[in-house]
Amino acid sequence: MIKVGIIGATGYAGAEIVRLLYSHPQAQIVWYGSRSYVDERFASIYKNMFTLVEDKCLDDNILELSKQVDVIFTATPQGYLAGVLTEEILSNCKVIDLSADYRIKDVETYEKWYGITHKSPQFIEEAVYGLCEINRDKEVGARLIANPGCYTTCSILTAYPLVKAGLIDPSTLIIDAKSGTSGAGRGAKLPNLYCEVNESIKAYGVTTHRHTPEIEEQLGYACGQKLMLNFTPHLVPMNRGILVTEYASLVKKDGKLPTKEDVMKAYHDAYDDEFFVRVLGYGECPETKWVEGSNFVDVSCMIDERTGRVVMMGALDNLVKGAAGQAVQNMNIIFGLDEKMGLDFAPMFP
Amino acid sequence: MIKVGIIGATGYAGAEIVRLLYSHPQAQIVWYGSRSYVDERFASIYKNMFTLVEDKCLDDNILELSKQVDVIFTATPQGYLAGVLTEEILSNCKVIDLSADYRIKDVETYEKWYGITHKSPQFIEEAVYGLCEINRDKEVGARLIANPGCYTTCSILTAYPLVKAGLIDPSTLIIDAKSGTSGAGRGAKLPNLYCEVNESIKAYGVTTHRHTPEIEEQLGYACGQKLMLNFTPHLVPMNRGILVTEYASLVKKDGKLPTKEDVMKAYHDAYDDEFFVRVLGYGECPETKWVEGSNFVDVSCMIDERTGRVVMMGALDNLVKGAAGQAVQNMNIIFGLDEKMGLDFAPMFP
Amino acid sequence: MIKVGIIGATGYAGAEIVRLLYSHPQAQIVWYGSRSYVDERFASIYKNMFTLVEDKCLDDNILELSKQVDVIFTATPQGYLAGVLTEEILSNCKVIDLSADYRIKDVETYEKWYGITHKSPQFIEEAVYGLCEINRDKEVGARLIANPGCYTTCSILTAYPLVKAGLIDPSTLIIDAKSGTSGAGRGAKLPNLYCEVNESIKAYGVTTHRHTPEIEEQLGYACGQKLMLNFTPHLVPMNRGILVTEYASLVKKDGKLPTKEDVMKAYHDAYDDEFFVRVLGYGECPETKWVEGSNFVDVSCMIDERTGRVVMMGALDNLVKGAAGQAVQNMNIIFGLDEKMGLDFAPMFP
Amino acid sequence: MIKVGIIGATGYAGAEIVRLLYSHPQAQIVWYGSRSYVDERFASIYKNMFTLVEDKCLDDNILELSKQVDVIFTATPQGYLAGVLTEEILSNCKVIDLSADYRIKDVETYEKWYGITHKSPQFIEEAVYGLCEINRDKEVGARLIANPGCYTTCSILTAYPLVKAGLIDPSTLIIDAKSGTSGAGRGAKLPNLYCEVNESIKAYGVTTHRHTPEIEEQLGYACGQKLMLNFTPHLVPMNRGILVTEYASLVKKDGKLPTKEDVMKAYHDAYDDEFFVRVLGYGECPETKWVEGSNFVDVSCMIDERTGRVVMMGALDNLVKGAAGQAVQNMNIIFGLDEKMGLDFAPMFP
Repeated sequence: MIKVGIIGATGYAGAEIVRLLYSHPQAQIVWYGSRSYVDERFASIYKNMFTLVEDKCLDDNILELSKQVDVIFTATPQGYLAGVLTEEILSNCKVIDLSADYRIKDVETYEKWYGITHKSPQFIEEAVYGLCEINRDKEVGARLIANPGCYTTCSILTAYPLVKAGLIDPSTLIIDAKSGTSGAGRGAKLPNLYCEVNESIKAYGVTTHRHTPEIEEQLGYACGQKLMLNFTPHLVPMNRGILVTEYASLVKKDGKLPTKEDVMKAYHDAYDDEFFVRVLGYGECPETKWVEGSNFVDVSCMIDERTGRVVMMGALDNLVKGAAGQAVQNMNIIFGLDEKMGLDFAPMFP
Repeated sequence: MIKVGIIGATGYAGAEIVRLLYSHPQAQIVWYGSRSYVDERFASIYKNMFTLVEDKCLDDNILELSKQVDVIFTATPQGYLAGVLTEEILSNCKVIDLSADYRIKDVETYEKWYGITHKSPQFIEEAVYGLCEINRDKEVGARLIANPGCYTTCSILTAYPLVKAGLIDPSTLIIDAKSGTSGAGRGAKLPNLYCEVNESIKAYGVTTHRHTPEIEEQLGYACGQKLMLNFTPHLVPMNRGILVTEYASLVKKDGKLPTKEDVMKAYHDAYDDEFFVRVLGYGECPETKWVEGSNFVDVSCMIDERTGRVVMMGALDNLVKGAAGQAVQNMNIIFGLDEKMGLDFAPMFP
Repeated sequence: MIKVGIIGATGYAGAEIVRLLYSHPQAQIVWYGSRSYVDERFASIYKNMFTLVEDKCLDDNILELSKQVDVIFTATPQGYLAGVLTEEILSNCKVIDLSADYRIKDVETYEKWYGITHKSPQFIEEAVYGLCEINRDKEVGARLIANPGCYTTCSILTAYPLVKAGLIDPSTLIIDAKSGTSGAGRGAKLPNLYCEVNESIKAYGVTTHRHTPEIEEQLGYACGQKLMLNFTPHLVPMNRGILVTEYASLVKKDGKLPTKEDVMKAYHDAYDDEFFVRVLGYGECPETKWVEGSNFVDVSCMIDERTGRVVMMGALDNLVKGAAGQAVQNMNIIFGLDEKMGLDFAPMFP
Repeated sequence: MIKVGIIGATGYAGAEIVRLLYSHPQAQIVWYGSRSYVDERFASIYKNMFTLVEDKCLDDNILELSKQVDVIFTATPQGYLAGVLTEEILSNCKVIDLSADYRIKDVETYEKWYGITHKSPQFIEEAVYGLCEINRDKEVGARLIANPGCYTTCSILTAYPLVKAGLIDPSTLIIDAKSGTSGAGRGAKLPNLYCEVNESIKAYGVTTHRHTPEIEEQLGYACGQKLMLNFTPHLVPMNRGILVTEYASLVKKDGKLPTKEDVMKAYHDAYDDEFFVRVLGYGECPETKWVEGSNFVDVSCMIDERTGRVVMMGALDNLVKGAAGQAVQNMNIIFGLDEKMGLDFAPMFP
């Protein structure tokens, strides 16, 4: 039985780890860390867990925690883990970080987009970017996993097959992303009030959203060159779900555009062995509802011969595959368990 | 491994059985019956099951089906099962009926409220009303289970402890119920369109809703006398969930109203051994969100000393404990399995 | 042209006054009072008014304000107006108060339910309770209007005809109310976050909600006796709208229950001359959507002969007839304008 | 007083014309045409108009109607008006068509995208494309107005200033559009059910949506060359509102990208005299909520210097500026009234 500690257990992502691990046969949470709710029962803050979790929340003493558990999940604000991580902690237990602290290899890029000085850059190199479907092999033996962002996971997995196969021109990539409101967290802020969000849609963080360099870096590895793209997130009146719609110019070969068969082959080559990535039929549009509550990502694409572009689409649940579910999937991988353990259930509809 | 057939697999309740049984370790669906989608892949109609269910839908030949399975779930319109059920079917396999056909013992009452002639009243007596927490013992050995309605389950379990303990006057009971829209089914009708339901609330079926006599009958057993009550359902702009708010006059003993301790004792006496009924603190208001996707019912109450009434409240997920989840719970009971099997997971929040 | 000042212009109710008065031909806002946003443009806080309102917000110096305007609307927290109101202010201009400070005639009742010491009880007697359809005549010449609460307006207008006509027993009255989330105000509090409200329904303030004594007092006037009732509000995932479902036992005359014709006659007697109260057909269920954005209240009822009770139903827009619209209607009355001025537009659907 | 007839009065767009004209001081509806509800009271189908409209629905005899009114609005399916329009009708009264029949000048393009044979192409040339802010002058004296589509109005007005000013390369234009569900109409279809739309977002009509050629044609006029673009609509769980997010490469001059000042100047040059187009601050993101229920369009943009692209954004209410409101605005123009008449009210928030 893997002993688990969570720091930031009472944010939406942390609480989702609690929900998922309740059904995990090989993991047991022993530390519900929460700065805001120390000494309160976890189940009085997240009443879905009433009668299921008896524990109270503890403070976030990560060093002490690291001695008691096999793995720590940090579902914390940017900069927290970088500020407290030490070699001693990493020698005590595994760390799976849901913040951005160790996702970006170039510390300058991190500091520029996040406006924070990185306090422990010495661990960046050993951190493995935990996008399971792509980096699974690198995770074996890893001590520190940088769990990818929600927008990032969806954006990358949707474009990855065509980028890797060289079928699209990376410099033309435009990502228009739409997210449910749980992505904004549980902070009591005016823009997140029901009446402000309901019956409305808007873009935000235009040209400046922090997930941009993370997407660029990972897709850059896939195509072997640096790339810059447009990423525009939108806030949608729903609790969960991210949909990305991505546009790129197809690369002609011998004067001809890639065909429907070419693009679908790229998707199937990339994902046919993956349980959690479901390749829909050509031109079939993913809907966030069909993956709700689950660790699945649904992807597809459609060619526009008139403009020579391809429209790629992907959908996931931002709290599961976009956060807690992928974190559990990473835990399974680094502990040598079946990757699907605790995650093999059907999406909820409607 | 229990072999399962579903008739009406492509309605919301039927599809929820499919979702739940996907994670059930001892049951396997072998027949996805659907009059509307014969020969289409189930997963093309419910895309949440894409890659998880490969089967196509079959017609609803229940006799043939009964020879191939251990249990049939009928998630069908009122009157269907009564029209086709035979002794041969019941001798072939168990039947768990999610319609109202066998819920009401008095056939005249059934025919009056449903406006249908009952075509096989001979099976009414042997049918067990499958409200697990109350009738569990009667289900052992049963061939035919009448799975309770969604409003009914919530209404009964919320009032049952106080009715049974004689703390309230049954003739004063008023039930004001609020339901998510999945309760209206997947039929393409104008009143269920998004723009008609969203941003609105309304009552419907005032004084005439068909779940009324079912509630009256079952609560009548609890208090040992016939009762008539007001039941008013409302349509709420959300997918899942039923909340009931129930009002009744408290019965004085020796000139004194029951106390907070008296009413809570009644709830705890009734439910402390029940996994799926969670008794909240006195006066704590249940929210449908905290049980979403799960088989739990949350109940509580509060006394109003000014008026001498008690306000009882209960919340459940209409598609789970209100339909498919309770049906699976019934299956577990009649096959001698752990009652929680396949249902022991946490509600989803947010 | 009536000069208007608003204190609390940047709450939802205050901003709704701004929206409504934009189209009012005889009123002009000259003071947008807002403690939180002094010196900021009103239209930067409520962007719906962009290009339509150029003014900046001012502080809430009510004495100074009273010298510059003909009428002040106070859309402020409980206790504010009672703390600052003076004879001088009332001699300078009219005051229409959207808080509860002057709604309840019995100061002890006010202080008990609101937990506040009333700081200027000397003005309570002269204040007119501004439920236009009932107190219109008393408003002529009034200096101080206590604008009714949102739940209150809906609850009273729905029951008033049957209470007044003596057709129901007031001691049996139970009000189950459902409100959209704008009723909770624009404060940045966790329970009002989108993800907490969406896809859920709950009761709150059970047996203790502050609108209870206001409803009891006004309905008491209608039937000529004191009454106590149960009032239970619920939070519904929608922006606007209140629906009330009210239950009461019918009073028999000569051993017979009132008929459908009797109850409808009471409604028509009460409201046939009222533009803003629409009496639906017998048994027709009001929906909040059909009054959205407007000053209308839709009411109806249905008799349950089995239980001898009547179910009364009413719907309004909590920010319009439940707050700002009624305040404007009151302004029209006390200034001798056509009561419909600025309010005669159709509800928005969908 | 202008006498108005509506054909298709009981669709969402038709009913919105009824709502708007209720407050129009110079227009009166005398014919509520509805194939589905002949002889039923309009207000029994759209209960928001209860007590406000007494008329019954009539059939859609357009020739007869044309003799009785000054203007006909056709809010009808594609192909209807083309099938019935005659010279006689046009000599009797003005026609404002909310369908696509006369929007596209090239009949082949129309027939290809709509899959319909155009039955009266002889009127295409005289029809004026009623995008008021751009074609106002051409509308004087027009008999037939082709009222623009909802997506189209938003897409064009958002890009128009930069296209016209030559600041962007038209061949790089990508339009990602998001619409509320009322755009799908009031037809009882499964994909429009509440539970199918709520808590989900999806793209549809990818590369094939019929508004594409309409946008291309009009923007082509603005830049003086043919263009092809990508247009991807999405369905959003809200009733009203369209948001477009548009991407295009900026055109360098003397090796330099246009500046923030350059792009904003283009917007202000285009719209500073327009009441209904509101130019937000540079980089300020429009939200559909801030224009809800009104005839306004809010637009803005932001440059991404890293990629050399500009992100343009626009928001409107699809039933008002995207349909009925613009139709009324067109009516005002062709009858020489103040363009704002009946439309000069504030958006509703929240």
